[in-house]
Amino acid sequence: MEDFEVTPWKASGDINYEKLIKKFGVSPITDSMKQLIKDVFGEIPLEVRRGIFFSHRDLDKVLKDFKEGRKPYLYTGRGPSGPMHIGHALPLIFTRKLQEKFDTFVLLQFTSDEKFLYNPELGPEQVYNYTFDNIRDVLALGFDPDKTYVIEDFRHIKYLYQIAVSVAKRITYSIVRAVFGFTNETNIGMLFFASIQAAPAFLGYFMDDVYNCLIPAAIDQDPYWRVARDVAVKIKLPKPTQIHGKLLPGLKKDVKMSSSVPESAIYLSDDRKRVKKKLMNAFTGGQPTVELQRKKGGNPSICVVFDYYKFLFEEDDKALKERYERCRAGELLCGECKMDLVDRVSRFLENHQKTKASIKDKDIERVMIDNKIDLHSLVNEFKMLR
Amino acid sequence: MEDFEVTPWKASGDINYEKLIKKFGVSPITDSMKQLIKDVFGEIPLEVRRGIFFSHRDLDKVLKDFKEGRKPYLYTGRGPSGPMHIGHALPLIFTRKLQEKFDTFVLLQFTSDEKFLYNPELGPEQVYNYTFDNIRDVLALGFDPDKTYVIEDFRHIKYLYQIAVSVAKRITYSIVRAVFGFTNETNIGMLFFASIQAAPAFLGYFMDDVYNCLIPAAIDQDPYWRVARDVAVKIKLPKPTQIHGKLLPGLKKDVKMSSSVPESAIYLSDDRKRVKKKLMNAFTGGQPTVELQRKKGGNPSICVVFDYYKFLFEEDDKALKERYERCRAGELLCGECKMDLVDRVSRFLENHQKTKASIKDKDIERVMIDNKIDLHSLVNEFKMLR
Repeated sequence: MEDFEVTPWKASGDINYEKLIKKFGVSPITDSMKQLIKDVFGEIPLEVRRGIFFSHRDLDKVLKDFKEGRKPYLYTGRGPSGPMHIGHALPLIFTRKLQEKFDTFVLLQFTSDEKFLYNPELGPEQVYNYTFDNIRDVLALGFDPDKTYVIEDFRHIKYLYQIAVSVAKRITYSIVRAVFGFTNETNIGMLFFASIQAAPAFLGYFMDDVYNCLIPAAIDQDPYWRVARDVAVKIKLPKPTQIHGKLLPGLKKDVKMSSSVPESAIYLSDDRKRVKKKLMNAFTGGQPTVELQRKKGGNPSICVVFDYYKFLFEEDDKALKERYERCRAGELLCGECKMDLVDRVSRFLENHQKTKASIKDKDIERVMIDNKIDLHSLVNEFKMLR
Repeated sequence: MEDFEVTPWKASGDINYEKLIKKFGVSPITDSMKQLIKDVFGEIPLEVRRGIFFSHRDLDKVLKDFKEGRKPYLYTGRGPSGPMHIGHALPLIFTRKLQEKFDTFVLLQFTSDEKFLYNPELGPEQVYNYTFDNIRDVLALGFDPDKTYVIEDFRHIKYLYQIAVSVAKRITYSIVRAVFGFTNETNIGMLFFASIQAAPAFLGYFMDDVYNCLIPAAIDQDPYWRVARDVAVKIKLPKPTQIHGKLLPGLKKDVKMSSSVPESAIYLSDDRKRVKKKLMNAFTGGQPTVELQRKKGGNPSICVVFDYYKFLFEEDDKALKERYERCRAGELLCGECKMDLVDRVSRFLENHQKTKASIKDKDIERVMIDNKIDLHSLVNEFKMLR
């Protein structure tokens, strides 16, 4: 028995990412891989430097190809099951950075169908509302609209279905049962969905002259890519490649920031008051009293507040190190550290909310795949599928 | 153990339709039902009169509603796994008659996805070619283009997917395993497909002011409707209703005319020479010699040639009865009876082929659902799905 569990729907226990790398059969991002990234990009992005994006599949191939002029495209997504919190934003922010680095297009899939299928309580109208709210949030994170294609599964199924069916033909019930833990009582929509989530990992090849599909996403989505990679060989298309992120912990030191524990998550819609209340109640590595803290120092390695600086709210490595040391030395008290984070998070959210409010319906329409790519130009290509 | 088997993919053994009615839990078309049909239509269509369409689900409701001014719509389809034979044409010809009687619209689904998913050897291009050849054949059977909507699953998935997902949410693996005999090795596309085939049984309600969906189809498709009826209650839409046809026997007295035994099937593309060769070799109820036939008479009740007159090629009940009696009495010899059938079948096919050849691409486009119904007008309706 493992002492933690990570699936696309659930994470529990104390996640040991080193063990997870072995369990999932993925590769760690080693120092030599970091060197390769530096060679290619001129720098190592914060998320990689700090081990937040920590493992991969075939990232070396993507980088080498890119170095020789063969571009990848990016694909990531969002399951619109409710309002977005900053844990959802993390891999998207990283994806946007990669979009700049690779100067390439990104497919953003919104899996409204999956969320509707998975949650017995969720009706289509509710999913629809979440979806459009989430699209607005994601666009507000700063994707280049000229190189961004939004795929909303219900609206854009015609761009996915032909590929999904080719993929589905090569996936048996046995496989999805083993990989996703499905049972006899799982609905047939969820069984098929693996092929819908795989489709954008191949769609890019029908859209443009690209050589790899690179998927930046949290590690919990990896089972989908494992299946997609096995199928790729059978349909004679390149295997999708991945770079995997850690799950942002919840404020109560929950295994991940989760919508099911609202006080543990900072929503992209939260105001300063709410942020303050939540952060002030966050789990820290501090001592029970100020006296003890001054004397013994805090423990930033178990501190959620420190994690948030590290994951998102302190760009400067030196300043982060300083904060770490001042905490260890008992110079920095939790109250001050939290208030500083409240300021940074609130500022980030205020900016985000302002940008989000400025996004008009026409800005959303502009990035919708059906307004950017004529399906008919793809249909003949689809006939080449196997 | 039954001594016959009927599934959507296979029919074997000596089908006992009375037993099948009980096994499938459907209702026989009784004399009082025939009377109701006569009341409503002014006549009893040949296929019902002769017991070729022999069972149903809720046909009484459809007829009563229609009598009171509440129209049904019709839905049937074709799996484009190869060229069409006259066994495929039989339920479509009956559907076209019902279209006239009810003066209503018909949805014709071409399940290219299913055929691609089911047959490991079939590539998308091949399915695509069969599909468009089959659509031409079906239109040549005389559907009213103003009231006919062709749904080709790949091209028109956007009209089906939202409904299919609502349906799929209510169907577990257990159900499709039990109903269709699927196994752990069945691909997830086939598992999901039940919901794609169910979708047109509900789509009509989003298109027009109709009260029932009536599905005329061969009885082997019934498992799909059983599942769709169970789901209907859960998504608060009317249960699809059915009228079930018998399977046209193959020329060798095979359980059904099947593309896997080419000499047993008369293709819609066959010429007179081929028809003659096949019919001359058909299984009959005749005696081994002319002398014995003159003396003892033939047995039309087991004769495939007689079946073809009865199913398709003798409109006149009196003439059919006369043929029966002349055979029993030894007056009609097999050679004469077959040659007469060769004439009728060839004439039918020549006409069909001429009509088919006259169908232009624009005639096909005219009946394609995406050229007739703006999806955007349906999307708001889809939000009312559960």
